[in-house]
Amino acid sequence: MFEAVEQDRKISKKEFEEAQTQLHHDLLQAQFALKDTRHPVIIIIDGVVGAGKGEVVHWLNEWLDPRGMDTHAFWDSSDEEDARPRYWQFWRRLPERGCIGILFGSWYARPISQRVHGEIKDADLERKMKRVKFFENMLIEDGACIIKLWFHLSKSTQKERLTTLDANPKTRRRVLTSDWEHHKLYEKYSDASERALKLTHTERAPWHLIDATDWRHRELTTGQIVLQAMRDRLKPATPTKVVAAPKSPDSKKSVLAGIDLTQRIGGGAYKEKLAEYQSRLNELAWRARDKKVSCAAVFEGWDAAGKGGAIRRVTRSMDPRLFHLYSFAAPTKEELAQHYLWRFWRVAPKDGKMTVYDRSWYGRVLVERVEGFAREDEWRRAYDEINEFENQLVDHGTLVFKFWLQIDRDEQMARFKAREKIAHKRHKITDEDWRNREKWDAYEHAVEEMIERTSTKRAPWTLVAANQKKFARIQVLKTFCDQLEKRLK
Amino acid sequence: MFEAVEQDRKISKKEFEEAQTQLHHDLLQAQFALKDTRHPVIIIIDGVVGAGKGEVVHWLNEWLDPRGMDTHAFWDSSDEEDARPRYWQFWRRLPERGCIGILFGSWYARPISQRVHGEIKDADLERKMKRVKFFENMLIEDGACIIKLWFHLSKSTQKERLTTLDANPKTRRRVLTSDWEHHKLYEKYSDASERALKLTHTERAPWHLIDATDWRHRELTTGQIVLQAMRDRLKPATPTKVVAAPKSPDSKKSVLAGIDLTQRIGGGAYKEKLAEYQSRLNELAWRARDKKVSCAAVFEGWDAAGKGGAIRRVTRSMDPRLFHLYSFAAPTKEELAQHYLWRFWRVAPKDGKMTVYDRSWYGRVLVERVEGFAREDEWRRAYDEINEFENQLVDHGTLVFKFWLQIDRDEQMARFKAREKIAHKRHKITDEDWRNREKWDAYEHAVEEMIERTSTKRAPWTLVAANQKKFARIQVLKTFCDQLEKRLK
Repeated sequence: MFEAVEQDRKISKKEFEEAQTQLHHDLLQAQFALKDTRHPVIIIIDGVVGAGKGEVVHWLNEWLDPRGMDTHAFWDSSDEEDARPRYWQFWRRLPERGCIGILFGSWYARPISQRVHGEIKDADLERKMKRVKFFENMLIEDGACIIKLWFHLSKSTQKERLTTLDANPKTRRRVLTSDWEHHKLYEKYSDASERALKLTHTERAPWHLIDATDWRHRELTTGQIVLQAMRDRLKPATPTKVVAAPKSPDSKKSVLAGIDLTQRIGGGAYKEKLAEYQSRLNELAWRARDKKVSCAAVFEGWDAAGKGGAIRRVTRSMDPRLFHLYSFAAPTKEELAQHYLWRFWRVAPKDGKMTVYDRSWYGRVLVERVEGFAREDEWRRAYDEINEFENQLVDHGTLVFKFWLQIDRDEQMARFKAREKIAHKRHKITDEDWRNREKWDAYEHAVEEMIERTSTKRAPWTLVAANQKKFARIQVLKTFCDQLEKRLK
Repeated sequence: MFEAVEQDRKISKKEFEEAQTQLHHDLLQAQFALKDTRHPVIIIIDGVVGAGKGEVVHWLNEWLDPRGMDTHAFWDSSDEEDARPRYWQFWRRLPERGCIGILFGSWYARPISQRVHGEIKDADLERKMKRVKFFENMLIEDGACIIKLWFHLSKSTQKERLTTLDANPKTRRRVLTSDWEHHKLYEKYSDASERALKLTHTERAPWHLIDATDWRHRELTTGQIVLQAMRDRLKPATPTKVVAAPKSPDSKKSVLAGIDLTQRIGGGAYKEKLAEYQSRLNELAWRARDKKVSCAAVFEGWDAAGKGGAIRRVTRSMDPRLFHLYSFAAPTKEELAQHYLWRFWRVAPKDGKMTVYDRSWYGRVLVERVEGFAREDEWRRAYDEINEFENQLVDHGTLVFKFWLQIDRDEQMARFKAREKIAHKRHKITDEDWRNREKWDAYEHAVEEMIERTSTKRAPWTLVAANQKKFARIQVLKTFCDQLEKRLK
């Protein structure tokens, strides 16, 4: 595959100067045109050692406006990154809409190198590239412009290049020991890279192979590809075709209806159980810390279903240093400048800690769906995106808890009314709550579909009968204790 | 000092229940009242081991609305934190305006423990506490409400507490080995803490000593102190008295006027020097990485003084993985929700890397001063704040570069006109540039004062004669090379 680009194409100084003036101008225009759009630009720079990838970045910086542009290298991961699912380090570096992020190596470098060194097998590489494909596609659906550049050198040119750099005391430092190791493994790298590229070469995120032998050719080609990709992204999109979803037969048994809401617990038993589970959870949280097991706990439910109270019973059990609680409402401007999953990834738990999400990414398929904040094609594909996100958490070793607190309409009405009467609870009830209540059926439908599509073996939903708050709290605590205990055994 | 609070004060269950209902209500009210103000609330929780600091946090979480509130512990620092100046870990955890941050240990824990273990001397502790005082005061000036709580137990009560916890298998885990070590060093901790507290007990950020023997007393006292402090912060501030600054005598020699703007370099010499310095800088940047030396490079100057061009000559010299370039314009909403230095702290360089600031914290005493975005008392105290910030960078081992690119009015006019003629430069010239130009004298005065007040031996300004761009670029590159070389020797 790579040999095909070795064309010995040389560009003269004059030709280069002429072309680059125009390119400079055009790239700036494209950048400015993208600025206020919903499109972030992600430029992935990868390829063989010695191909001058650093130089490429310099030229891009020369041609583009540095404002709103940043470069990130993924050559070493910090302990903060290692303590979280692999993709956290990528999410935290994604450019905002209208901005450009240049990523060195990105999500390709490590799997390729692992394959070369025999740390993973072909099947693993395939699995990892599948994940990459899903990730890139998800970002593209959200508006991203992803430009993937692979810089190629033949083995002999690479050797020449490294030898020259090595011979000059001024440039010797640029050649790392690992560069020569790379060279020795040239064929292996070539094989693994070819496999990785083929697996991730898609219509919307194609790989561009660039012959890096002549630097002027390399730069001009890069500039032109980047320009073309940015221009393409600016074209009005063909409206996404929404595949009509199979109508769920009305006769279908509802999961929510199957929850026995009459379940209750007596006051005495409650106190006893509460003390027991809280004390167990306290200990388990410390053991989880010792064993570096992290938890992501999602709380969803009807307004006034008692999420806050249940969460407090959980957090009260734990040392405050062992968890972080985040409440999510409408996204801020900064959050809107990113993919909707970004703000949840951002606070993904560190090893040994728990993140409690008071409302979560499920907002996409609940409130955003019902209120029309997300288009149909957006919330429809969110199920897969969410499953993939949770899969990544589980892959890292994170325990994922998902609680749906279920109450019925009458109970909600009773609680709304009660809230209005209690001074320190009055702030909890707003006009919006009353409005949401009117859409009960639409929400119910969304909840049913959400549970059906996202309750997986690895990250199952726990449906909590919450008509009695005490009963709900004990159920939640019990789930935490049982699951954590199972894991820590 | 601490003995004074040991009062054996006990509160009955009934008394507690009555008081806490009211407290709960009042705290919520105060929290909501603070929500849309410019005041972040910082609650510092510290004190002896076994005093139940975790419990205190639980109660605060019970009484306050968890939205917009977060708890942070500073018991271990990550490598990302160790690779940056000490206070970076605090800055990244500061609550936004209207929000509450509960900080465990915060900036006190480490210096006190270092003093106890003889790692630092009294004089060092004093120096560190001076820094703390400055930091807290700066945040308060900016609107913060800082509440400092010290929880005390007598030595015998502490022993009792730890023994009880240790005896119960369910709570044993909560007692860390280090807790007993703490206990053995009780007197030493007491001495060091007393010293630290006395040094940082100020009118606006006083320490509150709380006897933690009776838990109900501990919680109620905490709640009441927090409530009172929040209420106090809500009172309209007495207008800050601005001490009239000593008028600089007009006869005083101007630093800017002292720059010889006629300095030039010939085309041939320029090319030669440029190549020489860029190659040197490339090598030095790699050596700085090896030796974990970080750099913070600030570029300021008149509009069209050639900052961008000079920066590009610097960044082109370096591998793109070794630096980050950030351009600063008007702050975003998220940035406005924090102290003005926050956005610059946030990107402080990691060991071995360079952060290039295209415009910087000096905006406070330049554009914000001249355009009236900062009040006089704000920009006046900014000089000290800036010096302290840079001091912290230097203390950590960061090399601080500050360039002022000087041109005269005629040169600026010539460049404005030229920019309007060149297609790919036209975006660089805006109406604002023309308006700023009209305020040349006011800006000049601000620049003079800035240089006078912030050019220090440890972080000096480099005044660059920039009427000829080539000459300016060489000066900048030379400064980088010389300073880095000196440091890396």
